[in-house]
Amino acid sequence: MSIQALLFQTMCCASTISPRDEYSLVEALKQGKVSKPVIAWVSGTCAKLFKSEVQFGHAGAKSGGDLESAQAKNKALEEAGAIVPTSFEGLEPAIKIAFQKLVEDGVILPTQEIVPPSVPEDLSSAIKSGKVRAPTHIVSTICDDRGEEPTYAGVAMSTIIEKDFGVGDVISLLWFKRSLPRYCTKFIEMCILLCADHGPCVSGAHNTIVTSRAGKDLVSCLVSGLLTIGPRFGGAIDDAARYFKDANDRKLSPYEFVESMKGKGIRVPGIGHRIKSRDNRDKRVELLQQYARSHFPSVKYMEYAVIVETYTLSKASNLVLNVDGCIGSLFLDLLASCAMFSQQEIDEIIEIGYLNGLFVLARSIGLIGHTFDQRRLKQPLYRHPWEDVLYSKYV
Amino acid sequence: MSIQALLFQTMCCASTISPRDEYSLVEALKQGKVSKPVIAWVSGTCAKLFKSEVQFGHAGAKSGGDLESAQAKNKALEEAGAIVPTSFEGLEPAIKIAFQKLVEDGVILPTQEIVPPSVPEDLSSAIKSGKVRAPTHIVSTICDDRGEEPTYAGVAMSTIIEKDFGVGDVISLLWFKRSLPRYCTKFIEMCILLCADHGPCVSGAHNTIVTSRAGKDLVSCLVSGLLTIGPRFGGAIDDAARYFKDANDRKLSPYEFVESMKGKGIRVPGIGHRIKSRDNRDKRVELLQQYARSHFPSVKYMEYAVIVETYTLSKASNLVLNVDGCIGSLFLDLLASCAMFSQQEIDEIIEIGYLNGLFVLARSIGLIGHTFDQRRLKQPLYRHPWEDVLYSKYV
Amino acid sequence: MSIQALLFQTMCCASTISPRDEYSLVEALKQGKVSKPVIAWVSGTCAKLFKSEVQFGHAGAKSGGDLESAQAKNKALEEAGAIVPTSFEGLEPAIKIAFQKLVEDGVILPTQEIVPPSVPEDLSSAIKSGKVRAPTHIVSTICDDRGEEPTYAGVAMSTIIEKDFGVGDVISLLWFKRSLPRYCTKFIEMCILLCADHGPCVSGAHNTIVTSRAGKDLVSCLVSGLLTIGPRFGGAIDDAARYFKDANDRKLSPYEFVESMKGKGIRVPGIGHRIKSRDNRDKRVELLQQYARSHFPSVKYMEYAVIVETYTLSKASNLVLNVDGCIGSLFLDLLASCAMFSQQEIDEIIEIGYLNGLFVLARSIGLIGHTFDQRRLKQPLYRHPWEDVLYSKYV
Amino acid sequence: MSIQALLFQTMCCASTISPRDEYSLVEALKQGKVSKPVIAWVSGTCAKLFKSEVQFGHAGAKSGGDLESAQAKNKALEEAGAIVPTSFEGLEPAIKIAFQKLVEDGVILPTQEIVPPSVPEDLSSAIKSGKVRAPTHIVSTICDDRGEEPTYAGVAMSTIIEKDFGVGDVISLLWFKRSLPRYCTKFIEMCILLCADHGPCVSGAHNTIVTSRAGKDLVSCLVSGLLTIGPRFGGAIDDAARYFKDANDRKLSPYEFVESMKGKGIRVPGIGHRIKSRDNRDKRVELLQQYARSHFPSVKYMEYAVIVETYTLSKASNLVLNVDGCIGSLFLDLLASCAMFSQQEIDEIIEIGYLNGLFVLARSIGLIGHTFDQRRLKQPLYRHPWEDVLYSKYV
Repeated sequence: MSIQALLFQTMCCASTISPRDEYSLVEALKQGKVSKPVIAWVSGTCAKLFKSEVQFGHAGAKSGGDLESAQAKNKALEEAGAIVPTSFEGLEPAIKIAFQKLVEDGVILPTQEIVPPSVPEDLSSAIKSGKVRAPTHIVSTICDDRGEEPTYAGVAMSTIIEKDFGVGDVISLLWFKRSLPRYCTKFIEMCILLCADHGPCVSGAHNTIVTSRAGKDLVSCLVSGLLTIGPRFGGAIDDAARYFKDANDRKLSPYEFVESMKGKGIRVPGIGHRIKSRDNRDKRVELLQQYARSHFPSVKYMEYAVIVETYTLSKASNLVLNVDGCIGSLFLDLLASCAMFSQQEIDEIIEIGYLNGLFVLARSIGLIGHTFDQRRLKQPLYRHPWEDVLYSKYV
Repeated sequence: MSIQALLFQTMCCASTISPRDEYSLVEALKQGKVSKPVIAWVSGTCAKLFKSEVQFGHAGAKSGGDLESAQAKNKALEEAGAIVPTSFEGLEPAIKIAFQKLVEDGVILPTQEIVPPSVPEDLSSAIKSGKVRAPTHIVSTICDDRGEEPTYAGVAMSTIIEKDFGVGDVISLLWFKRSLPRYCTKFIEMCILLCADHGPCVSGAHNTIVTSRAGKDLVSCLVSGLLTIGPRFGGAIDDAARYFKDANDRKLSPYEFVESMKGKGIRVPGIGHRIKSRDNRDKRVELLQQYARSHFPSVKYMEYAVIVETYTLSKASNLVLNVDGCIGSLFLDLLASCAMFSQQEIDEIIEIGYLNGLFVLARSIGLIGHTFDQRRLKQPLYRHPWEDVLYSKYV
Repeated sequence: MSIQALLFQTMCCASTISPRDEYSLVEALKQGKVSKPVIAWVSGTCAKLFKSEVQFGHAGAKSGGDLESAQAKNKALEEAGAIVPTSFEGLEPAIKIAFQKLVEDGVILPTQEIVPPSVPEDLSSAIKSGKVRAPTHIVSTICDDRGEEPTYAGVAMSTIIEKDFGVGDVISLLWFKRSLPRYCTKFIEMCILLCADHGPCVSGAHNTIVTSRAGKDLVSCLVSGLLTIGPRFGGAIDDAARYFKDANDRKLSPYEFVESMKGKGIRVPGIGHRIKSRDNRDKRVELLQQYARSHFPSVKYMEYAVIVETYTLSKASNLVLNVDGCIGSLFLDLLASCAMFSQQEIDEIIEIGYLNGLFVLARSIGLIGHTFDQRRLKQPLYRHPWEDVLYSKYV
Repeated sequence: MSIQALLFQTMCCASTISPRDEYSLVEALKQGKVSKPVIAWVSGTCAKLFKSEVQFGHAGAKSGGDLESAQAKNKALEEAGAIVPTSFEGLEPAIKIAFQKLVEDGVILPTQEIVPPSVPEDLSSAIKSGKVRAPTHIVSTICDDRGEEPTYAGVAMSTIIEKDFGVGDVISLLWFKRSLPRYCTKFIEMCILLCADHGPCVSGAHNTIVTSRAGKDLVSCLVSGLLTIGPRFGGAIDDAARYFKDANDRKLSPYEFVESMKGKGIRVPGIGHRIKSRDNRDKRVELLQQYARSHFPSVKYMEYAVIVETYTLSKASNLVLNVDGCIGSLFLDLLASCAMFSQQEIDEIIEIGYLNGLFVLARSIGLIGHTFDQRRLKQPLYRHPWEDVLYSKYV
């Protein structure tokens, strides 16, 4: 048996029903297009009882003119032949009466009542009462946002403000899950300052500039640039840390280290500068070294890098320890000297690539800056000049 | 009361325990560093009973030499003073005995047994038995992967192969949730062919090339290029469709349409070509028009675009209907003429930006091609030339 | 000597000058805030000679009322004391006269004229005349967009339409730089159909759905999903091709291959199915095999995969050759059997990861579909349920 | 005339020539496959004169055994019939003699010498000498990397370290192009602390976690999460700033502001909290307000937000000013009170969305943290549970 009666009640939450759909039904009834009995109720009539505009159901039910008020609609439906109760409470009896009439008239045959299935309990209450346990699919350890305010590794946000934490301290909590001493977090901030930008010509800034000039939103611009960070762009600090750690831990002499790298065809990362040289030292390196020497308990990895530099300088005067090498080696000293990490944890940190994370975060400052810069300059769509491309078929 | 006994059993699943950790404990016991009684059992001893290498617990338990075998470990632990049962089954009694001895010696005071909480039922079985209903957090309608093979809008994958569907047909199922006639899906494929690439100089290809030369993986390269697609790059087809639809539906004359756009300072999208002109028509446009005229039930939107072109050509000879305008208007004809979409659905498709999706998908072919191209050519890291940048402080 | 005279001509292109800035100057002159002589000319006065609205300079110069017309502005400036010539041509003489007056009055001392530097030639004309050669920074080989219409590996776009090329043929041109026979490009299309989607629960679709529900644009949604494709999601076809190629080329027996994989702790990719088994074969695999056997010159790699399957089925009945393994091995047959690639080129194609490209492209169809789906369903911001997360401090 | 002689000299830079290619030629000559005269010279023979290993040309030329030494190759070529001079200098005469012999033997006919085209000058020297000017395609103003060390808005990196700048100061230089007072840059740092993370359940962290569990690299994980930031996730601070600024500048009373927002169906951003209320104030808000009141010259926008809060609290007790609203309004105060921005610049900063940039940068700390967290926890591929999805056909 198919449904023989059209039940019709405007639902408040049914977003797809436009405020004039009821009149389509009125029209259809008038034109005899609907042969089944229609039982209808348009909610929202008590809106009339309020002075100010109260929102009932969808916008149409409340706004303005008589024509669109719920009362007017109910009246129109009734006049068109629909069964319309006098209140919402009358809807159920009206359905019952209409049904029985259809049965009496022989239009429909009543079917056997089925036993309704018992309503299952809601998951959340079942969990709360301890009847059911739901498996969790995600494990997370760094930030808990369930309480009054989020905590970073157990420290409440307001404590962070109160205790005058810096950006480095928050990184310490969210990445290392512990509160590193201030000389460490200060060093992390220094790394961010030094890696924040390197001009518009490097891969990352260039792609961000191109995307910004394509009129895209900030995140797209930033992301398009970030995606170039990897082995060839931005990887030098990470590589310096890895190779210096490996060489130092295996107690290689600078000669053995440098020559074994050469043998593998790998340039020693962290060594060499375009302009700087033995007699024209990089001030940034000097400042970092100075800071570390007066604040770090030990700078053995940096000292190792320095004696490697002594060796490479004997080969060419521009093979100085550069900023990447200095940061890379000092980061090792930070991990090793603060006595808050096991050897295994240090290995994991280096393997996972925390230093890469530091570079990515720092350079985001520059990439966001380039996005704003291009937008402010109102630069048009970038198109690479044809003349700069070698179109080739034979490669 | 704190725990007075160290219970120790090598767990198979504890990924962080290295195969040599047991010996660290042996060492600690020998050196008297552990004062609590240790009850230990290293699992995996039956490994010896098998000829071939069976995997028990972690790798260390099975591999090679006596030193690392479970038996050797148990022996070493026992010799160092640990309580080691003779089999796994003996672990529980051993714990009991050790506990009672500690009580008797007065080292620990037994506490009152607490009633263990009843174990809650597992969610999946509770759902299956109808006791609990869990809310779903995601609604999805296009592809069902729960059965023997995934279905696209209800059509099984194997049917798609069997019926010789094309790429356009699959797009039809996954984007439009219905099987459009072949003339439509063929037209969708034509659009993909024509939008697949436009050389290395446009924003998208350029960023992809830069990222590929930074040595990044395929997805990063593709994505870095895709992110430039938007209002200024790749948006012309979408814009053409929107404006032609609006103008045609509002029954604007070509004069009214073009001049009102001019008034708003917007160039008519889909009109104009760098080289092509009245007397040097774009062959691609002609081929698309020809295809549509012989396969589409109606091409009213395209005809509208053609009379707009007649008007713009009267202004300048290169203001021809270009490929973007032709695709944009014909896509409207596709939607309107196949009689499978309500007016509301068509509006939604245009608003959501399905044509943009078509461009994005098509151009992905080219961007992936550029990634492969650069990798094959072994191009080094790209750095934009300094000389091409105006470094300014005064803007 | 600092500049002693304010020259003022409203520039058409100066986007930052608002149409009312001239009146600010008028005001400043009236209030005696400007002591230097002002020579001014507001362009756009001939606008009055035209009936229709012609656009001169910025919008303000043309539009509407007297107040903002260029004439009105010039008049106001003159009345405020500025030197205003009667036409643009009069600007230069006016400057000269004002300058000479300042000299005569002793306000300024004329300085020695410097020889202006010779104007360098423009790069493009210098290149055209052969005087200069500029290095190109980019090499590209797959698509040339400089002519009347772009070409894909030398084939004009219109030819592609004319010859009824399919999506697979365009991929062939843009990725392989050659026109592969139709049986190959048809197979490529089949791969796209089968990889287009796999439901809403896999990593890629899930992230796309979350991003779409965050209200982001199509490209962001697609990209957020694509970024999950890698070793664990989507990598099985690629892996299957690599391992089957290596095993077959090294002439390993199925036993040697499977057991050596097991020894390395790697599951054989392309083998195994959740539901399918020896007696309930995967129809998709059968269809692909059937197609290849009747169209490919040779299917040696697939046959190798089949005998591997025979061996694995002897271990467990669900260790069947699955769709990934079937596609992976047949793609090797495609490359090897069409006689259009050198052995070195095939190795390069496998190493670069063309199959991964195919998966990425195919799945983009699904991810775009999921974006549209969520948008159509008007889904709100997704927040992962707290209950599904194990918040832990001790890991 | 085609080339009648094969010239052969191993090029150092030709990366595609393998060290054994010369022997292939030897083989071909011996087998009579090459009929043209071959003049050959393998460079690198002086390698023998050095004791240590000096790198000449490709690796093969220097390394090891006699077989692969340049001398051995030259000898083999000569024995196979090639014309091999005794040194590199002999190559040119050898070519001449071979050519003349071919002419004398009548094998080739000498053709008229053509005048070689004059070699164009190199672009870089032509620019340096002032002969040519090349247009620049990119404008950039925030960071200059051409000198000895990069400068941020004119400030050298080493100065930044020396003067003990913080992260906020670098943001000030790269985003605002000026050195804001420390109370401003300190406030910027506070915003970063408070926005750094908000747990694993929000869109951004969730997508990052999913991507990390797919085994992808750090940048892909970060990016996949960042792409969810937009109108619905992370946009509240930006929106709060925009609406508060607009309302305050238009001098709307709190009643007018709140009710007009309601009229438009927009929730007032920056107002409302899940837990916090009139009697349980948000400590973070209090701390920020306290800081601003004692450090900012003026806090008029924040005060406006506070009187808006007074009005909303009269409606419901949890409609408090939340952290987003507090940061948003105080950022306006920062811009307005430091007297370093014109009104137009402030409007531009708000329009461009600098606050969004701050959120994106801050949250990157958290997203990178989640990436590390999942990697450290060695979590497997995430698959959303089927049970959580409503698969529907009827929407």
